[in-house]
Amino acid sequence: MNHFTTLSDVPDPKALIQKALKIKESPFSDTALGKNKTLGMVFFNASLRTRMSTTRAAYNLGMNVMVLNVNADSWQLEFEDGTIMDGATAEHIKEAVPVITSYCDVVAVRSFPELKDRQQDYSEKVLNAFKTYGSCPIINLESATLHPLQSLTDMMTIEAFKKTAKPKVVLTWAPHIKPLPQAVPNSFLQWANQMDVDLTVTHPEGLELSNEFVGRANVEYQQDKALASADFVYVKNWSSYHKYGEVISNPEWQISLKKLSATNNARLMHCLPVRRNVVISDDAMDSDHSIVGKQAENRLYAAQAVLKEILNGLK
Amino acid sequence: MNHFTTLSDVPDPKALIQKALKIKESPFSDTALGKNKTLGMVFFNASLRTRMSTTRAAYNLGMNVMVLNVNADSWQLEFEDGTIMDGATAEHIKEAVPVITSYCDVVAVRSFPELKDRQQDYSEKVLNAFKTYGSCPIINLESATLHPLQSLTDMMTIEAFKKTAKPKVVLTWAPHIKPLPQAVPNSFLQWANQMDVDLTVTHPEGLELSNEFVGRANVEYQQDKALASADFVYVKNWSSYHKYGEVISNPEWQISLKKLSATNNARLMHCLPVRRNVVISDDAMDSDHSIVGKQAENRLYAAQAVLKEILNGLK
Amino acid sequence: MNHFTTLSDVPDPKALIQKALKIKESPFSDTALGKNKTLGMVFFNASLRTRMSTTRAAYNLGMNVMVLNVNADSWQLEFEDGTIMDGATAEHIKEAVPVITSYCDVVAVRSFPELKDRQQDYSEKVLNAFKTYGSCPIINLESATLHPLQSLTDMMTIEAFKKTAKPKVVLTWAPHIKPLPQAVPNSFLQWANQMDVDLTVTHPEGLELSNEFVGRANVEYQQDKALASADFVYVKNWSSYHKYGEVISNPEWQISLKKLSATNNARLMHCLPVRRNVVISDDAMDSDHSIVGKQAENRLYAAQAVLKEILNGLK
Repeated sequence: MNHFTTLSDVPDPKALIQKALKIKESPFSDTALGKNKTLGMVFFNASLRTRMSTTRAAYNLGMNVMVLNVNADSWQLEFEDGTIMDGATAEHIKEAVPVITSYCDVVAVRSFPELKDRQQDYSEKVLNAFKTYGSCPIINLESATLHPLQSLTDMMTIEAFKKTAKPKVVLTWAPHIKPLPQAVPNSFLQWANQMDVDLTVTHPEGLELSNEFVGRANVEYQQDKALASADFVYVKNWSSYHKYGEVISNPEWQISLKKLSATNNARLMHCLPVRRNVVISDDAMDSDHSIVGKQAENRLYAAQAVLKEILNGLK
Repeated sequence: MNHFTTLSDVPDPKALIQKALKIKESPFSDTALGKNKTLGMVFFNASLRTRMSTTRAAYNLGMNVMVLNVNADSWQLEFEDGTIMDGATAEHIKEAVPVITSYCDVVAVRSFPELKDRQQDYSEKVLNAFKTYGSCPIINLESATLHPLQSLTDMMTIEAFKKTAKPKVVLTWAPHIKPLPQAVPNSFLQWANQMDVDLTVTHPEGLELSNEFVGRANVEYQQDKALASADFVYVKNWSSYHKYGEVISNPEWQISLKKLSATNNARLMHCLPVRRNVVISDDAMDSDHSIVGKQAENRLYAAQAVLKEILNGLK
Repeated sequence: MNHFTTLSDVPDPKALIQKALKIKESPFSDTALGKNKTLGMVFFNASLRTRMSTTRAAYNLGMNVMVLNVNADSWQLEFEDGTIMDGATAEHIKEAVPVITSYCDVVAVRSFPELKDRQQDYSEKVLNAFKTYGSCPIINLESATLHPLQSLTDMMTIEAFKKTAKPKVVLTWAPHIKPLPQAVPNSFLQWANQMDVDLTVTHPEGLELSNEFVGRANVEYQQDKALASADFVYVKNWSSYHKYGEVISNPEWQISLKKLSATNNARLMHCLPVRRNVVISDDAMDSDHSIVGKQAENRLYAAQAVLKEILNGLK
């Protein structure tokens, strides 16, 4: 594996999920693999889980880590071609990326969308600039439209907790106060489409995701119908794809214990951070349905599996 | 030792002081102890000495370190139960702490008080949330009301510099322009009460500390009487405990060389940072009385002793 | 070598350049040298290349690294003697430096000038405070008036790319929208004066640099005359030294492909970051003349050579 920026970078997603589960059993089996190798982590946006789990994953492989918080540590970067740079941006991405990648063996990048111009966001200009101008493998730490490290984690978690060969997995939209990206649901559907699951996505009208990601998933506009007999309920807010970036308010879509009780004793999943009593109620979060903590813990092993594959590819 | 959050977490404080002094003589004797172990440092507030000394201590034990500056790197956390999280806080501490601790072997936390509501601050909600919701040992890097790493350092320093079996140790309040926490004096008194010292605390009326921490110390309202025949003068400002958080102005309590000259050639101590010519005069800071630099250097070995005990406890 | 703060700290600059070029061929030959050693990096200003290249250099030598972003991580420091510290500064450099250096084996510092008071800036108060009050070797990561790590890099790069025994090297001023320091051109001239090069500096009237740094370089006020038959064109903006900190506007001094075409097929160099189409045009940046990426890559090996010499000096 060279880059890990989207599902299609992964030769065999199912095998990668199994490798990640194996690493969790024995996380210190490859501490020599990262010797003399440095992971550079570049953050254009805030991060807690991703920052810490990826750092720890690199340490478990014997790598060194260095972090660049672009806005706090350096200066604003320019992405447009041909600009006369007499404004706020002090360095062009065409210079910054070759330089950053020349000091690192692997570079991981987080860059959220602006949620103003869909075409712009879906062109993935930041992530693609790292692939285009960089000289080393690139890992996506959540880009404008995708979050594959989260999805690999999610698939690992479903694999570990499933009780039937083909569980019913429901991705449900839930309310939020801010316009959020589609990256997590896009990637979730992309990856879940590859798995042996009965896949449903449910959301109010107007919140349809791109068909490119929905794939063979059932689309259901009634949340209660979707949740019936669910084995896994994956909760996530996203803003509108069609009226791009618009916040649609539907407080009644909040996930509660009552709603989970009407499922097939479903496991409750969320990528975190989650706003309690807005997206999911306290009684659901604190119930036995919730596996959000174990899901988050798996972020470490997903990142470690990805780094291991990439380091193996460097040899 | 599991946690290191307050004196009562330490089975034998005097033994720990001796261990810290031994580590200073031979800081690289345990570089294998921290192999494959990661220290997570979580800062809700600024730090210089604590940040750097604890990091170096972890390195000396062969640990890896990762830092989370909560406000700069991630987002604001919610601490109240039952909140409808439709405001500034994006993640509940009930999710954040299990996640952070799942990626670390030891987590160290700095979180200052707000100095508005005494009961709230003295409940130590942030530090206790890490202990309650976390799955690994927690180290206090200065909490709302305690700073035990500083006090362990202070006791080491007194032990190393004392010339008599039972030196006279005076904790004196000194002026400052801002409302400062009681964490350092609280912890200092808590630890010094365990030591073979003649202990006095001196401050203007209205600046009494909680009896819980004063213990068997003599309370003296006249600074000159307190300083007479002192072997160690520990200087620190704190805001009022009784009129909680109030700044009391008494410029004449500033420590000067003249005041030190009236002691038993006392050693001058301060936890730093210190505002020169507000808290302590230049002539005192630059005199031979001052051991503040050597005191600060001991922070490294105090932190290393604590980490070593905790790592030994993990086995 | 003890400190690396200016050219005169280096016993044999030419030998150091050759060592840096050797390290580039074999960067992992000294991974044991930095065992149990920690580099502290202290940033008063933003950094991308310097931060990442120096960190990686330390890792390649087996060192640990810790970073202090002074303004974000800690608090404002006081530099003036005798101040009554009742304002914004919370700690005096006289305390901060001994403390920081007591936790580190080598400390590297970045501190830009204020460009308001020439005497103040040229006194190098921050850098010199680290040398005066510190207890370990100090590396200059760009100070008020000097950037020797950049210049060592530049000399390495010229050495690697030169086609004749004594190439013509031209340092040309170019426009910028902000007042920039003289640190890069000062250091460049200081180092280039030591090399076997035909050295010219060109700039509009009023932008003369200090004679101390110009040395034996030819000063030419006509850019086209200066560039004729140049083998290396080193482009850099600086603000006025004589009308200290003043921005002088001369858009026609921007470097373009057309200007480079009139040279001896010159290599185009710049320390980066560069504002495209203000300092250098896109067509020049994207031409085969440009070696700015390879130049920036050499920052790593320059830093590694310096750290290696300093670590050897510690033994």
